[in-house]
Amino acid sequence: MSTKAYAAFSEAEDLKPHQIQRRDLQDKDVFIDIEYCGVCHSDIHTARAEWGQPHYPVVPGHEIIGRVLAVGPNVTKYKVGDLVGVGCMVESCKHCNPCDEGLEQYCESGMIGTYNSAKSKHGGITYGGYSENIVVEEDFVLSIPTTIDVKAAAPLLCAGITTWSPLRHWNVKKGDKVGVIGLGGLGHMGVKFAKAMGAHVVMITTSPEKGEDAKKLGADEVLISKDALQLQAHANSFDFLLNTIPVGHDVNPYLSLLKLDKTMCIVGAVEPLPGVHGGLLIGKRRHLAGSLIGGIKETQEMLDFCGEHQIVSDVEVINIQDINNAYERMIKSDVKYRFVIDMKSLKNS
Amino acid sequence: MSTKAYAAFSEAEDLKPHQIQRRDLQDKDVFIDIEYCGVCHSDIHTARAEWGQPHYPVVPGHEIIGRVLAVGPNVTKYKVGDLVGVGCMVESCKHCNPCDEGLEQYCESGMIGTYNSAKSKHGGITYGGYSENIVVEEDFVLSIPTTIDVKAAAPLLCAGITTWSPLRHWNVKKGDKVGVIGLGGLGHMGVKFAKAMGAHVVMITTSPEKGEDAKKLGADEVLISKDALQLQAHANSFDFLLNTIPVGHDVNPYLSLLKLDKTMCIVGAVEPLPGVHGGLLIGKRRHLAGSLIGGIKETQEMLDFCGEHQIVSDVEVINIQDINNAYERMIKSDVKYRFVIDMKSLKNS
Repeated sequence: MSTKAYAAFSEAEDLKPHQIQRRDLQDKDVFIDIEYCGVCHSDIHTARAEWGQPHYPVVPGHEIIGRVLAVGPNVTKYKVGDLVGVGCMVESCKHCNPCDEGLEQYCESGMIGTYNSAKSKHGGITYGGYSENIVVEEDFVLSIPTTIDVKAAAPLLCAGITTWSPLRHWNVKKGDKVGVIGLGGLGHMGVKFAKAMGAHVVMITTSPEKGEDAKKLGADEVLISKDALQLQAHANSFDFLLNTIPVGHDVNPYLSLLKLDKTMCIVGAVEPLPGVHGGLLIGKRRHLAGSLIGGIKETQEMLDFCGEHQIVSDVEVINIQDINNAYERMIKSDVKYRFVIDMKSLKNS
Repeated sequence: MSTKAYAAFSEAEDLKPHQIQRRDLQDKDVFIDIEYCGVCHSDIHTARAEWGQPHYPVVPGHEIIGRVLAVGPNVTKYKVGDLVGVGCMVESCKHCNPCDEGLEQYCESGMIGTYNSAKSKHGGITYGGYSENIVVEEDFVLSIPTTIDVKAAAPLLCAGITTWSPLRHWNVKKGDKVGVIGLGGLGHMGVKFAKAMGAHVVMITTSPEKGEDAKKLGADEVLISKDALQLQAHANSFDFLLNTIPVGHDVNPYLSLLKLDKTMCIVGAVEPLPGVHGGLLIGKRRHLAGSLIGGIKETQEMLDFCGEHQIVSDVEVINIQDINNAYERMIKSDVKYRFVIDMKSLKNS
């Protein structure tokens, strides 16, 4: 089957979007008609070769919502017409310890990304959600609750699970004091989830305006992190910090906010963090950790939770033709809080 | 009572060592005749004002072994003649959560250091173990097993507990692959304890000679950390890393050695760690943590364990008159692995 896709190109490649082939359906494959696709900062990094040389043409997109159009003969979980999602992964080895534990994102052979991976067992390069349709093994297809706004559910597949997974892993619970550092695509989901889990949520930001926005999303309190007196007042008081800042930064002022034995988890900065002070770790046995998206099982749990609690992302819907402008606006943090592409705009083009 | 002590002076102070007064015995006080005192790098930092302006004259020393000379009227745990020890702390608030949990080193009001603290409830400045004797509340006095070499037991009170506590806290057990990074006063105890706990112990060092020394102490294997191929061969394979390097350093090569969800604990570097890479934390949900000495309860557990397993430090015994030379040799790492002062040399001077 052929498909129409919106691809980022290098001049050295001559494959055109309409020439991109989806594989024929295998036994366990689900063929999905894509309705919406969220726009993640990873899409920009990849399309612009900021994370190494990509396999052009790149079809980005790993926050995919759509309807099942067809299924392979041995698919049991989904049927034609189901509302489904696809996140950041489409394959893993399925037999290492992390895969056995439902943590496919940490697969010891390496997970296969939804786009720009050359290691799929099906051959070729994986192409993502800026496309009319996609074929994915059923084990990497998620069920989307029909009770929530479909287009606003798309970012749950990456921004959602990236914040949900650490909040769950570090056992955030009712009454915990949880800080969410940074208010963007990840941070706004972190605030919503932590609040729904019963935590006392503190938005930690340099911007008073973002602080006010965070209160509208459910934050109980705001800590302006450039104010030394506010930092001092909250010192040694947090049970967990979710750090969504997407670039390298000084984490020391945040570390000093943690109680004894508590953790700050990095989910955004895939970059060096300058001068982490050993004394801040030693003095209160604090932890600096990281977390990568989430496994399929916990992604489904998150989606079910979102269905029950009516949680979705705050999104701005765009047409595929506006994608480059959207990228520019994302770089300036000019979106509340996630762009989602209405794929009708590609189909009708 | 008066005492003789070996003190580091500033020219601005005119109190002489023989004028230093120990307090009169209070209800719960234990008066200890000091036999040996280990020499910790903290002693140098404090005496030389490298950790801020100290309260001169400083009487350093917090690895103290001695015999009980007298006890206050309400002391129940010790009697005259008992072999006892004192480590890094002599008081804490005793009513905060960490104190309640036996983690006095993390006392929310701040533990009172054995020397150079101006916050003792008894007033004055605390003076440490480079001295004929010391008075300490019984709750901060440890019982020393009589089955081990007394002089070699002194460093257990700081170097020992500093490595024991994280190995226990992170539940190192039989069959775990544990790396000890750096071979000095702390590292050599880390190797001995991890081995005694049943771990497969890997000495991680830049020096092949130190690697050979570590094998004599019980290490099963050596990883030369400046060898990229060796680092690669051990990538993602460690259950725990005990990092004893005493200064700021690049931790990224070590982080890459950890398995999913595992921890590297910093116990030496009370300094900034340059450029900790967020991607190394995120990619395998790794933890970078720290740990500070240990509580009184776990220090006693360690000492009892040492009695059962015949574990002591490797020491070089010196006279107090040689202390400045010892400091110079420690700075050059020219000691295997801890200097211990025989306090007879002060008493007889």
